[in-house]
Amino acid sequence: MASCRAATPEPVRAVDWRDGAVVLIDQRRLPGEEVYVQLRDAAEVAGAIRAMVVRGAPAIGIAAAYGVVLASREAYRRERKRWHVEIEADLERLAQARPTAVNLAWALARMRSVFDRVQGDPEPVLLAEARAIHEEDIAANRRMGEIGAAYLPSGATVLTHCNAGALATGGYGTALGVIRTAHARGLLKAVYATETRPWLQGSRLTAWELTRDGISTTLIADSAAAHLMKVHGVDWVVVGADRIAASGDVANKIGTYTLALAARAHGAKFMVVAPVSTFDTSTASGAAIPIELRTVEELLTVGDKQLATANVGAWNPVFDITPASLIDVIVTERGAIERPNASGISVLLKS
Amino acid sequence: MASCRAATPEPVRAVDWRDGAVVLIDQRRLPGEEVYVQLRDAAEVAGAIRAMVVRGAPAIGIAAAYGVVLASREAYRRERKRWHVEIEADLERLAQARPTAVNLAWALARMRSVFDRVQGDPEPVLLAEARAIHEEDIAANRRMGEIGAAYLPSGATVLTHCNAGALATGGYGTALGVIRTAHARGLLKAVYATETRPWLQGSRLTAWELTRDGISTTLIADSAAAHLMKVHGVDWVVVGADRIAASGDVANKIGTYTLALAARAHGAKFMVVAPVSTFDTSTASGAAIPIELRTVEELLTVGDKQLATANVGAWNPVFDITPASLIDVIVTERGAIERPNASGISVLLKS
Repeated sequence: MASCRAATPEPVRAVDWRDGAVVLIDQRRLPGEEVYVQLRDAAEVAGAIRAMVVRGAPAIGIAAAYGVVLASREAYRRERKRWHVEIEADLERLAQARPTAVNLAWALARMRSVFDRVQGDPEPVLLAEARAIHEEDIAANRRMGEIGAAYLPSGATVLTHCNAGALATGGYGTALGVIRTAHARGLLKAVYATETRPWLQGSRLTAWELTRDGISTTLIADSAAAHLMKVHGVDWVVVGADRIAASGDVANKIGTYTLALAARAHGAKFMVVAPVSTFDTSTASGAAIPIELRTVEELLTVGDKQLATANVGAWNPVFDITPASLIDVIVTERGAIERPNASGISVLLKS
Repeated sequence: MASCRAATPEPVRAVDWRDGAVVLIDQRRLPGEEVYVQLRDAAEVAGAIRAMVVRGAPAIGIAAAYGVVLASREAYRRERKRWHVEIEADLERLAQARPTAVNLAWALARMRSVFDRVQGDPEPVLLAEARAIHEEDIAANRRMGEIGAAYLPSGATVLTHCNAGALATGGYGTALGVIRTAHARGLLKAVYATETRPWLQGSRLTAWELTRDGISTTLIADSAAAHLMKVHGVDWVVVGADRIAASGDVANKIGTYTLALAARAHGAKFMVVAPVSTFDTSTASGAAIPIELRTVEELLTVGDKQLATANVGAWNPVFDITPASLIDVIVTERGAIERPNASGISVLLKS
């Protein structure tokens, strides 16, 4: 592996299509093991999304798009003329895999929008569309990286939460795309990452991904963020998003809202980086976004290790809502929205 | 063990003196194992404080007081007439064991204050003083429980952080003493506890201690507190303290400050519960309180499990400072100080 890691390595690919199958890096096993799994039908893809083999809103969307290709292959094999009916159960299975990230529904809708173009075997057309979604996501990440990095001062201290990186996207990152671009421009003094309980995306994924690419990173406990801001100073908090409502309220990893409150109290700026596929203008405000509750085992154990007494209860919402009023800028591939609100978002999405 | 747990069990004793030795429950091994260790000299006690076999500001003070008894025995054995000189190295060793909790220095100063009373063998006099410190702490806890519980409305939802319970004190708890008393009075609708990374005092200790005593408890990730306040409502955040400056600024477990910011944003009230031994009026404000940085291994591993990639940095401050302005009330055994400030604290401490 070491020989693959050149001075400016390509960011890791969380999702890929190879040899007629979906290939995912198993994010549950990082950083200890770099294991890739090959999935050959849509049910396996839905299961992998649910089990968080792949996670991160854009990466989920891309995996689901490739899942539709697999679903179409199976549907076409069963009923050549009625494949678009046969495929429905798999589309539903993919749609239900995770509730909060809207990119999943967006990718499925986009795949569905090309069904009409199909003549005969749907696989080539759908694969081309899935690959387009994937490549456009990477291009969007790089564009967002440029737009977001332009906000950072020279010598910036940034804090990120969860993993909005190559592992969460097509291959460069949203929040970590901004950090990658800022690093390449020599703008960064320090990068802090929260460990991000309960799933530890920060410790396990962000730390792995950034240090792998030569970006020095310091982990903190989620609860240390306000103290960090007070004693060391943070210029920008930079995070991704799983869904953005018409109002500009942002659903993102649990703890994002807490960071936004702390940032506001300390004069740290707050940046959300997300492709336009993350916007859900059919949802008026954050209050209407469904928040996924995951198993309490994620809180009560780490790996095989039981952390808590067995008879305690637990509440494990894995996303929260940051109101638009606490966000300084939302960066998309079409441009930035400062002090986001419904009209600013509406204008950008129509551009 | 089951037969020991009656309907209204005695809270666990974190520190005890039995058979001429200090007995500690090893808090590193809870909740998996309930193991007691016996310590026969002061160096062992200092080591146990440093390694967090015993933790919690009042419990550290009590353990150190008993440690002085062991130190005096050894000093008297070595030099009967100069035991109070011989003992100094051990007193220093105990004083240096943890830097933030002021109760440790307070307990040592109080033990030292009775040296003059000693005639001959110092052990009986010092043991009586250590036992007095211990018993007074439990009595203070119960008094604080009454004073603090009086602030809670009927049907209260409370959130606590870290472990300020029987395990952190002589045997009843400061913050958890308020929760115990409120539970006994039927005031509580729900008790939430943060897991409290990195050491997981909430998952491992608070959950164990409260459920053991029949108080239903729900764990949350530290980062979920603001979301909890928003969607379920929290009436009071109730925490302990490791040191309180003359200004009313409070040093407590990392994350306390974040909770105070979130509480203020949601109209949740914020209560600090601590005996008067926690006040350090020689420290003007929170900025002057030393904040312990512990090993990054606490963040990078859980038990034997490596969480993060090995080459990442980490910053592990284990306390933070909550400014007096975010605190609604400080509850002590001498009474409560609402909207704490230097003059209110000064008046109470002179009472």
